[in-house]
Amino acid sequence: MYRNGFSTFSDKWLSKVEDEMRAVLANDNPMVAQHYRMMYYHLGWIDESFQPGRFPVGKRIRPLLCLLACDSVGGHLEQALPAAAGVELLHNFSLIHDDLEDGDETRRHRATVWKLWGPEQAINAGDGMFALAYGAILRLEERGVPAETVLAVLKQFTQTCVDLTEGQHLDMSFEKRRRVTIEEYMHMIEGKTGSLIAASLAIGARIGGGDAHQVDALYRFGRALGLTFQIRDDILGIWGDPKVTGKPAGNDILRQKKSLPIIYALNHPFVSPIFQSLWTRDIQPEQLPQIMALLDTAGAREYAEKKLLEIHKSGIDALEEALGLQAHSSTLMSLADGLLQRQA
Amino acid sequence: MYRNGFSTFSDKWLSKVEDEMRAVLANDNPMVAQHYRMMYYHLGWIDESFQPGRFPVGKRIRPLLCLLACDSVGGHLEQALPAAAGVELLHNFSLIHDDLEDGDETRRHRATVWKLWGPEQAINAGDGMFALAYGAILRLEERGVPAETVLAVLKQFTQTCVDLTEGQHLDMSFEKRRRVTIEEYMHMIEGKTGSLIAASLAIGARIGGGDAHQVDALYRFGRALGLTFQIRDDILGIWGDPKVTGKPAGNDILRQKKSLPIIYALNHPFVSPIFQSLWTRDIQPEQLPQIMALLDTAGAREYAEKKLLEIHKSGIDALEEALGLQAHSSTLMSLADGLLQRQA
Repeated sequence: MYRNGFSTFSDKWLSKVEDEMRAVLANDNPMVAQHYRMMYYHLGWIDESFQPGRFPVGKRIRPLLCLLACDSVGGHLEQALPAAAGVELLHNFSLIHDDLEDGDETRRHRATVWKLWGPEQAINAGDGMFALAYGAILRLEERGVPAETVLAVLKQFTQTCVDLTEGQHLDMSFEKRRRVTIEEYMHMIEGKTGSLIAASLAIGARIGGGDAHQVDALYRFGRALGLTFQIRDDILGIWGDPKVTGKPAGNDILRQKKSLPIIYALNHPFVSPIFQSLWTRDIQPEQLPQIMALLDTAGAREYAEKKLLEIHKSGIDALEEALGLQAHSSTLMSLADGLLQRQA
Repeated sequence: MYRNGFSTFSDKWLSKVEDEMRAVLANDNPMVAQHYRMMYYHLGWIDESFQPGRFPVGKRIRPLLCLLACDSVGGHLEQALPAAAGVELLHNFSLIHDDLEDGDETRRHRATVWKLWGPEQAINAGDGMFALAYGAILRLEERGVPAETVLAVLKQFTQTCVDLTEGQHLDMSFEKRRRVTIEEYMHMIEGKTGSLIAASLAIGARIGGGDAHQVDALYRFGRALGLTFQIRDDILGIWGDPKVTGKPAGNDILRQKKSLPIIYALNHPFVSPIFQSLWTRDIQPEQLPQIMALLDTAGAREYAEKKLLEIHKSGIDALEEALGLQAHSSTLMSLADGLLQRQA
C-alpha cells in the first residue's frame, strides 16, 4: 500500500469497520431501543431525535491502525475487522464516560450523551458499549481466527482496558493535586492514549499472523505514536499558532491544564516556586506573557520537544524492527512523521 | 455434597474465591494505588482509611453457584475458581455503578464508593473492575481449561454484561414512566438478576465438562433461581412481616417501587384507573390500607405467587434435566427451595 493510495484504503476499509460495528450493536428488541439509540447517537449514526444521518465521527484512527498493522505483516484484512470494530467501540465507551467525568457538554459540536439523557443513563450506555466491544472481539472466531489467537487478543485488550482506567484515574487526580511528577504524567498518557493505540497495532499484527517479535515491536511503535500525538498536542496547546489550531493562544494555560511543559516547569528547581504560586490561582489572559516567559526560562518547550523526538525515534526503530526496510515506505511511517510535524 | 456439609463447602471454597479475586486485583504500582483501594473498599477488604479488616461482603452467591454447578457435573472445582471470581467481580462492578445511578449513599451499612470519593472516580473504579472481571475469566487458561471452552465462557459472560445493562436501562426508565408492562418488567429482572445467576451456573457447568444440554438446563435453572429470588423479594416488600424482614410494613409501596404486584395492579382492567391516580402522587403511610385493599381486589399477590411457583417449577424441571435423579438430593435444589420459602 502506498501513500497516495491511503485515502482509498481508508475509505474502503473504514466503511467495512462501520458495518461491523453496526452488526455488533444491532438490536431488535423495541423494549430497549433507547439504550442502543444512545450508543448510535454517540457514534454519529443518528441525531438526538433518532433520525439517521451522518455526523462527525472522529478519525477512527484506532481501527485504521489495526488494519494497517494486519496488512503490514501480510495478513487478511477481513479477518481483522471484528478487532478493528472492537478497539473503536472501546475508545468510544471511554469517551462516553470521560465526557461525564470531565463535565464536557459537547463533543464534535454535538451535545454529549450525559447532557442529553442524564448521567445515569450515560454511565449505563457506556457500560453497554464496553461489553459490546468485547462482543466485537469475540466475533474473530467466526472469521477463522484460531481460538488461541483470539485469547491472546483478548488478554491484550483487557490489559488495555485496565490501562485506560489507570490513566483516567491519574488524569482526574492531577486536577486536585499541587504536585505531579513527570513519571506520573507519562504513566497517565501511556494509559489514556498510548495503550489503546499500541494494542490496536499489536492486535492487528497478531491476527495477521505476525510473529511474537513483530507483535511486540508494533506495540512499541503504537505506544510511541500515541505519546507523540499527546505531547505534540501539549506543545500546540501552549505554543500553537491560533490561526492554524483554531484555538486561542496559550489555550491550555488559560484552562490550567497540567500538560507536560507545565509539569516540567512546576518541578523545575529554580522556576518552580514562582510558577507554582502563579498556577494555584485562576489565570487571567494578562498573565500569559509572564507565564510564557517563565516556561522559556525553564526550557519547558525544549524539554517537551526533546522528549517528543526521543519517543518518535524509538517508534521508528520499533517499526524497522517489525517491518525491516519496508518500514520506510509504509503508511505507518508516514503517519508517524505526520503526527510529529502536525501544526493543528 | 450434602446439605449438612454445605457450610463447610462454602467456607472452604469462598475463601479460595476471595484469594483469586485478590490475585486478579493485585497492584504494585503506588502511582495508581488509590484506584485499586476504591475497589478493595467496595469488596469489603479495607476500610475508608485503607486499613485492612473484614466488612460485610454480601452473600457471594454467584461464585458459589458457579462452583456448585461445576461440582454437579463432576468437574474440578479448582479449575472453575477464575470464573467464580469473574462473576463476583462483574456483579460488584455493576453494584458500584448502580449505587451511583440510583443515588444510594450506603451499601451494607457503609458509605458507597461514589459517596466517599465522588461520582467521577466511582465510575472509573467501576470500569476498572469491569475490565478486571474479564481479566479473571482469562485466567481459566492457566488452569488448563481448553481455549475453545474459555471462548465459550467469554461469550456467555459478554452476553450477560449486555443483559445487565439492558436490565438496568429498563429499571431506570421505569421510574420516569407511567405505564410499564409485565413483559417489560420480566425483561428487566431477567437482565438485572436472572442473567448473571444463570450464567454463573452455566459457566461452572461448562468448565466442569458438562455437555451442551446440561449447560443449557443449568442456565435455565439459574435463571429461574434469580427470578424466584426477585419476585419473592417483591412479595416480601409489600406483604413481608416487619418483625422478620426488619423493614416497615408496605415498604416498597412507600418507596413507590414498581415491583411485579404493583405493575400487575397498574395494568389491571378494573383496578388500574384508581390505582394509577393514587400511584402518581407521593404516597403517605395513611394511604397504605387503601392501596393494600386495591392490591387485594386486583389479586396482585395471588398473581405474583402463581408466577413465582411457575418459575420455581420450571427451574426444578431444568435441574432434573441437568442432573437426573441426583437433582433431588443436591445443594442446588435445597437452595432453590430455600429461596421460594424465605421470609426475609
